[in-house]
Amino acid sequence: MERSCLAIVLAAGESTRMKSSMSKVLHPVAGRPMIAHVVAALSCAAISDVALVVGRDADAVSSAAAIGGVSIASFLQKERLGTGHAVLAAREAISKGFDDILVIFGDTPLITPEPLKAARDGLAAGNDVVVIGFEAADPSGYGRLIVEDGALVAIREHKDATEEERRITYCNGGLMAINGSKAIDLLDRIGNDNVKGEYYLTDLVEIVRAIGGRAIAVEAPEEELTGCNTRAELAYIERLWQERRRHELMLSGVSMIAPETVFLAWDTELQQDVLIEPNVVFGPGVRVESGAIIHAFSHLEGATVRAGATVGPYARLRPGADLGEKSKVGNFCEVKKAEIGAGAKVNHLTYIGDAFVGAGTNIGAGTITCNYDGVNKHETRIGENAFVGSNSSLVAPVKIGDGALVASGSVITEDVPADAVAFGRARQEIKPGRARVLRERYEALKAAKKAAKAAG
Amino acid sequence: MERSCLAIVLAAGESTRMKSSMSKVLHPVAGRPMIAHVVAALSCAAISDVALVVGRDADAVSSAAAIGGVSIASFLQKERLGTGHAVLAAREAISKGFDDILVIFGDTPLITPEPLKAARDGLAAGNDVVVIGFEAADPSGYGRLIVEDGALVAIREHKDATEEERRITYCNGGLMAINGSKAIDLLDRIGNDNVKGEYYLTDLVEIVRAIGGRAIAVEAPEEELTGCNTRAELAYIERLWQERRRHELMLSGVSMIAPETVFLAWDTELQQDVLIEPNVVFGPGVRVESGAIIHAFSHLEGATVRAGATVGPYARLRPGADLGEKSKVGNFCEVKKAEIGAGAKVNHLTYIGDAFVGAGTNIGAGTITCNYDGVNKHETRIGENAFVGSNSSLVAPVKIGDGALVASGSVITEDVPADAVAFGRARQEIKPGRARVLRERYEALKAAKKAAKAAG
Amino acid sequence: MERSCLAIVLAAGESTRMKSSMSKVLHPVAGRPMIAHVVAALSCAAISDVALVVGRDADAVSSAAAIGGVSIASFLQKERLGTGHAVLAAREAISKGFDDILVIFGDTPLITPEPLKAARDGLAAGNDVVVIGFEAADPSGYGRLIVEDGALVAIREHKDATEEERRITYCNGGLMAINGSKAIDLLDRIGNDNVKGEYYLTDLVEIVRAIGGRAIAVEAPEEELTGCNTRAELAYIERLWQERRRHELMLSGVSMIAPETVFLAWDTELQQDVLIEPNVVFGPGVRVESGAIIHAFSHLEGATVRAGATVGPYARLRPGADLGEKSKVGNFCEVKKAEIGAGAKVNHLTYIGDAFVGAGTNIGAGTITCNYDGVNKHETRIGENAFVGSNSSLVAPVKIGDGALVASGSVITEDVPADAVAFGRARQEIKPGRARVLRERYEALKAAKKAAKAAG
Repeated sequence: MERSCLAIVLAAGESTRMKSSMSKVLHPVAGRPMIAHVVAALSCAAISDVALVVGRDADAVSSAAAIGGVSIASFLQKERLGTGHAVLAAREAISKGFDDILVIFGDTPLITPEPLKAARDGLAAGNDVVVIGFEAADPSGYGRLIVEDGALVAIREHKDATEEERRITYCNGGLMAINGSKAIDLLDRIGNDNVKGEYYLTDLVEIVRAIGGRAIAVEAPEEELTGCNTRAELAYIERLWQERRRHELMLSGVSMIAPETVFLAWDTELQQDVLIEPNVVFGPGVRVESGAIIHAFSHLEGATVRAGATVGPYARLRPGADLGEKSKVGNFCEVKKAEIGAGAKVNHLTYIGDAFVGAGTNIGAGTITCNYDGVNKHETRIGENAFVGSNSSLVAPVKIGDGALVASGSVITEDVPADAVAFGRARQEIKPGRARVLRERYEALKAAKKAAKAAG
Repeated sequence: MERSCLAIVLAAGESTRMKSSMSKVLHPVAGRPMIAHVVAALSCAAISDVALVVGRDADAVSSAAAIGGVSIASFLQKERLGTGHAVLAAREAISKGFDDILVIFGDTPLITPEPLKAARDGLAAGNDVVVIGFEAADPSGYGRLIVEDGALVAIREHKDATEEERRITYCNGGLMAINGSKAIDLLDRIGNDNVKGEYYLTDLVEIVRAIGGRAIAVEAPEEELTGCNTRAELAYIERLWQERRRHELMLSGVSMIAPETVFLAWDTELQQDVLIEPNVVFGPGVRVESGAIIHAFSHLEGATVRAGATVGPYARLRPGADLGEKSKVGNFCEVKKAEIGAGAKVNHLTYIGDAFVGAGTNIGAGTITCNYDGVNKHETRIGENAFVGSNSSLVAPVKIGDGALVASGSVITEDVPADAVAFGRARQEIKPGRARVLRERYEALKAAKKAAKAAG
Repeated sequence: MERSCLAIVLAAGESTRMKSSMSKVLHPVAGRPMIAHVVAALSCAAISDVALVVGRDADAVSSAAAIGGVSIASFLQKERLGTGHAVLAAREAISKGFDDILVIFGDTPLITPEPLKAARDGLAAGNDVVVIGFEAADPSGYGRLIVEDGALVAIREHKDATEEERRITYCNGGLMAINGSKAIDLLDRIGNDNVKGEYYLTDLVEIVRAIGGRAIAVEAPEEELTGCNTRAELAYIERLWQERRRHELMLSGVSMIAPETVFLAWDTELQQDVLIEPNVVFGPGVRVESGAIIHAFSHLEGATVRAGATVGPYARLRPGADLGEKSKVGNFCEVKKAEIGAGAKVNHLTYIGDAFVGAGTNIGAGTITCNYDGVNKHETRIGENAFVGSNSSLVAPVKIGDGALVASGSVITEDVPADAVAFGRARQEIKPGRARVLRERYEALKAAKKAAKAAG
């Protein structure tokens, strides 16, 4: 029978050192609030009951945490009296009775399901407290895990550690699993008889041993336990996240010429044999199919790029851009809420918004779909195999038929039937010698000014 | 007298872990297939006879390897029975009789001529087998080179090594030079009496000693022997290549503010006193002359930038762009197959394709050469010291004379004589108060809708 | 009483290894000549008398060093006979009588005021010579500081050091403070009886001890003493500078998703809660107020971005751009010498130069202010809550009134009154079936050509 589990996510911190107008757990990593990453890891670990302990920005934190498939109850921690106190803010949830209680922090977005599962396995094996630890590259400052005969006997704070204990590199990662049937009893035993007068969750290790229970530690990679207290640490977490994801994608068959310059979102989907050139930024909601090329300096968000399509360099795809197979969107082009048909080309200096471009159609350089009249947005529909000459303005709502041709520099305000040619430009006039006259006049003026100035 | 040499390039691997639709040796590094880098290193080492052992994508690999100055014969390895077997796929070439046989891998594009020369020097000094080794930062997994009194006595695979042997950091790089007159005999002695039933080239070390010959090892930097099995390794190789080349260019007098953001192609030519700002990407075929500045976010490919010219930020130069001395191509400008005269300016949001712009001419913001009519490309020729007003469309084929002036917003479809002014735009009309009326009408409409909705 | 101090900045080097057409101290770090960074550090350390020892590019170096609040006298070093000789080029300045003499190099732009103050404190404590040293990660090649009982007894050059001395990692950073009243006497005692026949400032340590004085060393971080001899070192210094500054800004409450891709200028001012996305380049003179977002691929120089404004992606702000609160400048837009009113939007493919855009106004995609007539620049003034349709050309000088509306694709050459609608575009014409005819004609032509060719 499967064991039930409640995860208590501590997200009530003041985040002072972030120097931010919002709680640190709302800051995004890979385009998604930190807290949502944590809840997603719980969900992947098959934990769907979450008690969220909130403080600052309580409502915003609760809503950022609300991802699909997880049931979340929020509990306000009114005073900040230590981690032990924070966990008990969720007393009501704990009291409902779960086999396992898992305590996790809202600012550790790199956590994966594996150590969470390992901690729960530790409970299932009969331990009452399971601490998630890590081998620290530099342990100074961390609480050391004192392990004897496989049992965790204490978490020794750095300042209290002996010289010998300080040589221990196995450290407390802060995350903890607790026997659900004993949790309330154990938590209530935590005292605050210390310098700061706070209730420390780490005391549970010695408490559980004192009453004849058993604690152990399980190890996670240090990276997964990285917490966030400053914006510099936030950037570090982002970097670790990006490195991890880029590596996974490369191993799955995505080429990145310079992976360190490719910025992925949490849900970026890149199929095998996609090529990503240097300096590409993905916002959320992008899918790129096999064989597509994303050239340098491209920016994609909420977009679908179908098999064999070519994007950029310097292309910006905004939400709702859907590029058909083997289509091309080139330099200094922006596509928003628009379908670009198979094999269609939008190659230069163009804005396509609220539009449909048929298969095989060619949109000339500098074309603008004038989709906004200052009040409403309107749609532009262009048929298949049409040709829109360069520097044209397509004033929406407007339709251009299959096979139609719009002359360069035209302003198109009325529908163009299939196979028609549309002009919307003035006839050219020439004033022979006029440029020379203008130049001479200007030179004379300049000379006169100079003479006047000299004359004082 | 110079010794003759045949290089056998092993390029028949399945590249399974690349998860790619093409052989790994076809994947580019610095814009050039890996295999071409390897052949180029051979060519630099004055080795011009190459036997290419191919498998997957045989034709494409053969043609990617075909660079100038090297004679290449391809041999298909039908079964994959180990490196010893692969080398013998080129039996016919080896049998022609060369003083030296050099075995090299198609997926080591960072190799330089120096270790290849050192290996051949080892043969010239009377050794029969010369293995190229490296000092491994982390030797685990590599075959260790067992050297005694200057002779290489064995290559010990990691799994077969004793504790003591595992402490050896001098490892087998895989590349090997073999006495040409003995090569066939030696290679035929390699057996397949091992777990995998494969023929291992590394057995040659013990074979040659057994028949009274001598093997030695020569050292190469670990970096040069980096092979490629996954796309993550491909990205690592690209990074090493880029770092090496950037460093060389900086030492030769090129300034890069942030070298790690500058991506060079294998043939990028940058002269002394060129300044490259952050985030610049070079495709193949670019030459930048002394004193030119390439601003941030520029993308150059097949382009020539002459002395003192300024490019970018956000400039895209495509094949055939030729920027004259002290000319400028600025932000959001694309230049393709076009000559920009000395001192000419193309500064903003412009597309110049299939064109000639004379010296001293100024092209206004938003200008487009409409070079494509949906069927053919046509040419635009603009004279010297001309002025093309902003947002103009130059519908090719068209000529604009020296000193001519095109009024802003014009569509130019006919030639403009020298010193003439050309207009091609509509006269402006004003509807006083009309905007207010439109706004009021819209507000009324909105109010009516709201009222209707309220009325239910 | 405060002690007086003269800083002698050595900036006369030939900079040969830079392979540059200008002196190395003129090369910029963070957009400011190296020499100006050094003088700024002096100024921060409250040292305002500077003797600049110049050689190559003397005038340019003197003017690059001239920053506010510091009095600089330049001295030409005609021959290059070592650091001791270089310092004495400023004999006249030293002779004026200062309590402290501080010798510093023009190519150490990472120096901060702290070690300079520490060195002067050393003089104030009665020492005659204070050498600024550093703990070297790799000391090989550096002069070792031989310290006994707190006194610096010698600076031992690497080549002269014993095996034991080479294990010392405390090295000479080159910077030195000298008792001002003894400086001339001490400096005159430096001899040139050595292999190169040069006068070495480092000899002062033994000289001062020989006459019964005392030398000490004070430590600075290695990074701050990094000197610049090649463009690779210049890039390294730039990187260290950038890393330092990015870190400071993040700790002060600025978010950077990928700090390693953000390039700051020496004077970039970013307030708390500014968000900088990947790949942003700042030239000098930028201030960004709280809550503003700078999206990826943006380039800012000489610009002000007010609270809550949004910039980019792909926005270029040039000198004089002033973006009002909550205004937006979007992709492929360039703004130069222009004020964008609060809440105004300039979102796509637009050039705004020499202009004023009123609050709440919307500028459509592809709009160009045609500010240059080939001779002079002219101004465009757009009122509040106006709407400029896409692909319009505003031919300056021109005014568009409050609430006015410019139809898409218009060329505006005359002022538009408030609340008026302005058109400046041709009426559209349609040629039914014409595109099909053109296509058929082209196909027939192609077939005829083919037939002719076949007929030979």
